Formats: sequence, C-alpha cells, structure tokens
Amino acid sequence: MTSRLESLREEYQALRAQDLSLDLTRGKPSAAQLDLSNALLDIDLGADYRDASGTDLRNYGGTDGVVELREIFAELLGIPVAQLLAAGNASLQLMHDTIVFALLHGLPGGEPWFGQDVAFLCPAPGYDRHFALTQALGIRMIAVPYLADGSLDLAAIEKHLADPAVRGMWLVPMYANPTGSTVDEATARALVAMPAAARDFRIFWDNAYAVHHLSDDEPAPLDILGFAEEAGNPDRVFVFASTSKITQAGSGVSFFGSSPANVAWHKKHTSVQTIGPDKLSHLRHARFFGDAEGVRAHMRKHRELVAPKFAIVDRILTERLSGHATWTKPSGGYFVTLVAPARTASRAVELAKSIGVAITPAGAAFPYGDDPHDSVIRIAPTMPTEAELEAAIEALCVCVLLAEAELEASGR
Amino acid sequence: MTSRLESLREEYQALRAQDLSLDLTRGKPSAAQLDLSNALLDIDLGADYRDASGTDLRNYGGTDGVVELREIFAELLGIPVAQLLAAGNASLQLMHDTIVFALLHGLPGGEPWFGQDVAFLCPAPGYDRHFALTQALGIRMIAVPYLADGSLDLAAIEKHLADPAVRGMWLVPMYANPTGSTVDEATARALVAMPAAARDFRIFWDNAYAVHHLSDDEPAPLDILGFAEEAGNPDRVFVFASTSKITQAGSGVSFFGSSPANVAWHKKHTSVQTIGPDKLSHLRHARFFGDAEGVRAHMRKHRELVAPKFAIVDRILTERLSGHATWTKPSGGYFVTLVAPARTASRAVELAKSIGVAITPAGAAFPYGDDPHDSVIRIAPTMPTEAELEAAIEALCVCVLLAEAELEASGR
Repeated sequence: MTSRLESLREEYQALRAQDLSLDLTRGKPSAAQLDLSNALLDIDLGADYRDASGTDLRNYGGTDGVVELREIFAELLGIPVAQLLAAGNASLQLMHDTIVFALLHGLPGGEPWFGQDVAFLCPAPGYDRHFALTQALGIRMIAVPYLADGSLDLAAIEKHLADPAVRGMWLVPMYANPTGSTVDEATARALVAMPAAARDFRIFWDNAYAVHHLSDDEPAPLDILGFAEEAGNPDRVFVFASTSKITQAGSGVSFFGSSPANVAWHKKHTSVQTIGPDKLSHLRHARFFGDAEGVRAHMRKHRELVAPKFAIVDRILTERLSGHATWTKPSGGYFVTLVAPARTASRAVELAKSIGVAITPAGAAFPYGDDPHDSVIRIAPTMPTEAELEAAIEALCVCVLLAEAELEASGR
Repeated sequence: MTSRLESLREEYQALRAQDLSLDLTRGKPSAAQLDLSNALLDIDLGADYRDASGTDLRNYGGTDGVVELREIFAELLGIPVAQLLAAGNASLQLMHDTIVFALLHGLPGGEPWFGQDVAFLCPAPGYDRHFALTQALGIRMIAVPYLADGSLDLAAIEKHLADPAVRGMWLVPMYANPTGSTVDEATARALVAMPAAARDFRIFWDNAYAVHHLSDDEPAPLDILGFAEEAGNPDRVFVFASTSKITQAGSGVSFFGSSPANVAWHKKHTSVQTIGPDKLSHLRHARFFGDAEGVRAHMRKHRELVAPKFAIVDRILTERLSGHATWTKPSGGYFVTLVAPARTASRAVELAKSIGVAITPAGAAFPYGDDPHDSVIRIAPTMPTEAELEAAIEALCVCVLLAEAELEASGR
C-alpha cells in the first residue's frame, strides 16, 4: 500500500512541477459558446424598435415583457404565454424577489413569512446559489439526499411536507446542477399531488437547463403547471428559466411562469418595483432566435462544443477512477458530479488547489456547505478548452487517488 | 358671475365638440427625444465586447458594473468611482431593493425594519412612485409640505427626526418631480448634519434629473456624500440615478452611490440576488457617451426639444390663468406643478378627462393620494407634440377656470 501511496505522491509532485493554472469551478459558457450568439451584439434595432403591436419598445412600460419573446419560450417551456413573464437578465433575481415577496407580503391568501420558522427542502447535492440565497434570506434549509439511483426521495419529501414550517422546495427538474438528473413525469405528478401541511407550500422549479440537451434525445419539459392543476394544487409551482446559458450569460433574459393567481400576485408586487424590464434586450433575443425552432437549432450548436468536453471527463474518469469512485453521465446541462471515496473530497480539492487546479469547494453543493460523506466533487467542464480540461481532470484524478491512499495509509 | 360661468361652459362644450384625445400624464420622453439615442441601437459590439481591463463582458460576473460607464457617471454625479455601482435598467428597483434589504436585514449595525413602526418623510408634492413603493412595503409616510417659496421645511424635518420611527426621507434634489425645485448647498448641509433619533436614518437622494437642465445654467450636483462625511454622518445618504431619461427610458442603466460602508452593505445583499448586471448594456452606454462631456452634449439636444414645450406651458398658463393660479417655472427636469384654486384640482382633472384630456389624478403627487388643498395638478409636457401640448394646456386652463367658477357659483 505504501508503494502505491508513494507512486501517487511522485505523480502529484510531477504535476506540481508543471505549474498548472486550471479552473473547473465555474458553470460558465466558454468563449466559443458565447461566440455562437455574437449576432446578438450586431442586431441593428434602429430601423425597427417596435413590437408586433406597434409599441415603441424604447420607452417605459410593458411590465410583462415583449410578447414575441414570451411566445418563443412559452412553446419551449410548455407554459401558456399569458402565464409566462419575461424579466431582467438574471433568473436568480426573480427567485430572490419571489421569496422576498413571500417574506414581506405572504403568498396569495397567506401571511408574510418574515419572523416565522420557514423551511425549504433542498434536494442535495444541489445548486449552491439556491442555498446561499435561502440562507441569506433567513430560511432554514432541510437537505433531502437523492436516492442511490439518482432519483428524488419522494417518501422523505412527503414526510417533511407534514411539517407546516416547510413552505418551499428547490428543484432543478432537468439536468440538475450538479447531478444532471432529470425528474420524470411520475415523480413530477407525485410532487404536485402530495399533501402539504402548509397551504402556501411552493416548488421553486428552476428549469435552467430545459433546452440544454447533450444527446439526440431532446425531451420537452414536463407540463408541470398542468399536472399541478390536474392534481388540485394549481398554485403549487413557480417556474423559472433564462437564456443565460443560451446566449450571453451576463446579458440574457429571465422568465417566470406560474398559475394565473401566482402570476397576478407576482405582477402586483413587481409593479411597485419597476416600470418594466429592458424590452430592447427582449427584442434583440426575439429577433436573434426567430422562433422556438431557432432556439433548438442554436442549442445543437452548443451541444457540438460541449458534448466532447463531457466525453473527455467521462473517458478520463473511467481510465483513472474506475473502482475508486462513481460519477454521473448526464445527457444535458452543465455539470458532472464525481462521488469520490468517503472522507476524501475536501482533501482532494485541497491537493488540487495546491498544484494550481481550482475545483469548487467540497460541500458547496450542500445546504450549509455540509456534505455528510465528504465525497461529492462538482466538475464544470464547459469553460476550459479541451486541452485544459484534459489536464485538469487528469490532475483531479491523481488528487482523488492520492487523498484515498493517504486516508488508507493513515488507518483512520 | 353667472355670465362668466356660462361663457366658460360654452368654451368647454366647444372643446368637447373637438373630440380631443390628449395626454399630459406621463413623464416620458417623446419619440423625438428617444431618437437622439438611436445610435445606441446600432452599436456593433461584435468586434469588441471587452472592457478596458480585457474582461469578456458577455459572460457572468462583474457585480459592480462596467467601470468605463461608472467613471462617466462618477464625474457627472460627483461621486468617487469606487462608491458608485452601475446596475439594471431601473433605479426604482434599486430603491425598492435597498428598502427591502433594510426591512429584512437591517442597515449596518441596525435591526431589520420589518415589524417595526418605520416612517419615511415625504416632501410633498413628490414622486408618486416613491410613495407607492413606500406604502406597498408597509412603511408609514409623513408628508412634509414644501414652504411657500418652494424650499424644504427644515424646521419641520428636524422636528420629525426626533422621532426614532423616522428612518428614511425621500428627496429628489434637482428639478424635483413635480415641483422642479432644487436643493441648495445650505439646505443639503443642514439635512446631513441635523440630529436624528434613529441611528440608521437615511436620505434617499434620488438624483433622477441631475443632468436634465433647461437653461444655460448647468449646476453640478452637490457633493452630498462629502457633506455627509464632513458633518460626521457619512452613512446618511443613498444616492440613486439612472440614464432612463437620458437614453432609452426602458433600457437604460441605474446607479447606486453611497459611503463605503453602505456600498459594502448593498453589495453583500445584492451578491445573493444576482450574478451581475447586464454589462453589455453598460458597455453600449459607455461607447455611446464616450465621456462625461458626451453626456452633457447629449442633454443639450434634449433641452432643444424639451425647453420649447416648457415655454408653451408657461405662455398659455400666463395667458389664461394669471390671477387664478400659480405654477412653477422649472429650470430643469420633467414637470410643471400647477397650483389651482383650492378645492378645484380634482374637479378640473375630471372635467378634462370628460373631454378627452388625460391629466395625472389630482392628489397623485401626495402620500396616500391626499392633497390637503385639492389644488395641485402635475403637468408632464415632454411626451406630446408641441401642437398637442398647446391644445391640452388650453383645454386644461378652461377646465381649471370652469371648476373655479362652478365652486364660486355654488357658494360653498
């Protein structure tokens, strides 16, 4: 065993000698992906800055967002146009504001959440910014670990919903951050049908990767609002989406979809907050896409750039970590979740950092940063070049194996 | 008297026969004003989407906003760049979010406002959206009428500040909505120096019209943050501004400026809300303006379009209402305040509406819509054409005179 530890140490020192500077932390599109949308930067709106109804989009007004763009995403998200609002450049802000409205004003028919014991269910591992937001807004987080097969633990969720403090649940239903898992129809129908002690319980259905397929299988989003209505809980779901990882990450458009009652509630509170979103940004996006099929064609170009990177990750992990770790093989989205041996993730990340390979901090994908097994490592393959990605994953594998060998050698 | 009433009624019926459809309600730029910024719609960022430091502005990040644009407005607003953030398209949203952060988290060193008796001082008449926002967020409004000479009632404000419930004060310091009044240095210094029972008292200094001059006199904004620091109350002032009435009203950039401690507090809470503002919009604006002098030159073009409209309003009011009403003669901004005879404003607005001339509802410029004298009518001259404006002001004058004559005839 010592010889294995020593050979890994040698390999690690050899990596150190390479003076690496690599980054696997950020779920950001690469420059090549951003280039796919460069036509957005050149669209000349000077000749025609009006929407289909003739409204001058340069001026104030239009709180719902530009209808041409809402129509495109209504089709893609499977949500009636009237129930889908287009807003600013960040869906995170829509989520934040939605929780703030609930805290300050309460949901339709409910009391303000502020000052109450309010808890959100957090399937874990999940999206770190969901958790940071929840914590910052004073909401208690309850981690709900995924089952071994990657599916949601519906029995645990149903049990938690008997607690009236549970008012919300985070969910990335397609190609989840970071597990890549996708909710199936039976699970979705169960989630909107199960009894909840809190009448104002809401699922925050963050469909951030609804069109971000990595295979020929391009499933349409589930009709979650329809399912909720059929189940007799029409107001249970808030849908969020954005173009952030479709066009330019920092300059996209966000969407909010829900039941008519929830949309009216949201609009009421938004109406004192703003005179309206940036409609010229909406118009640029509508012109750039043309229609829903334009978005689909555009996403296939992303896939051409992104899928090879996921293949690289899978190939190297297979070569180096088979028998030592498991990992996800997502068919869409932005992340691979590596499950390293228990009690090695934070050490592996530390080892990587020390030789110039930045990895998302172990635990970041868990509420309160608490990975109970210290085993989950989130890999974001999109941003680096393929050569950088290969080098970074090779180095990460050495760090995981070294952390494992160190642990075994320590006898703990 | 009856003959005067009858002749006004005849004039009013003649107006009715004209089937007017005119609108003086909205402080919106006219299409000709928006045309001044049409080059913004055509800027080709495709060749260069990086800021001066080389950062790719298409991607995530950059929570402070693009520095080139912040430098331009730092000069115009007299605020150090490091203390001036550039954000989304609506300064109203910045104001909303700032109050929300205070409600949920408290100001630096303070307790959350939520659930406390919190009151804001509201110089009146003022901006209706300030008041709508304040009311919606559950904050009590205390109207502080302007003095007869149009200046702030500092004695009343100082008295109110002895009440620890008073945590905020709205103020449009230049060319105020709707009075057009501008705070002078002595008043500004008094406001930041006067004792306040609430340690976390803040002035919401909404400098919406900082560069919107209507005469050759183009005063620089007061160094309100410097005055506050000199007075020993460095954290007393939040400065807001935007390009909404400089470029395209719905697609501009908003700004937040304050002390280093307040800026750090704001950034902390914003950091969980968004990954960053739309930096390409910032870049378009920076390229469009070039520098602060570019903004000043641009605003002179607005003045060429807007000043003649203010002259029309003043000319017709002088012709028709001298001896009956008073009105402001602003040297900047977007509004004229007409002070009609007491107890006639709402009737005059009703009369105007009935013949197709839309006027902002009487009382709208007051907290809770309560104009104690029912005399203030807000005139927004920018949006209509000059011909429409002439017709609308002529009609409004007839309605004011008729309302006055009706009141006199009623003997009440």
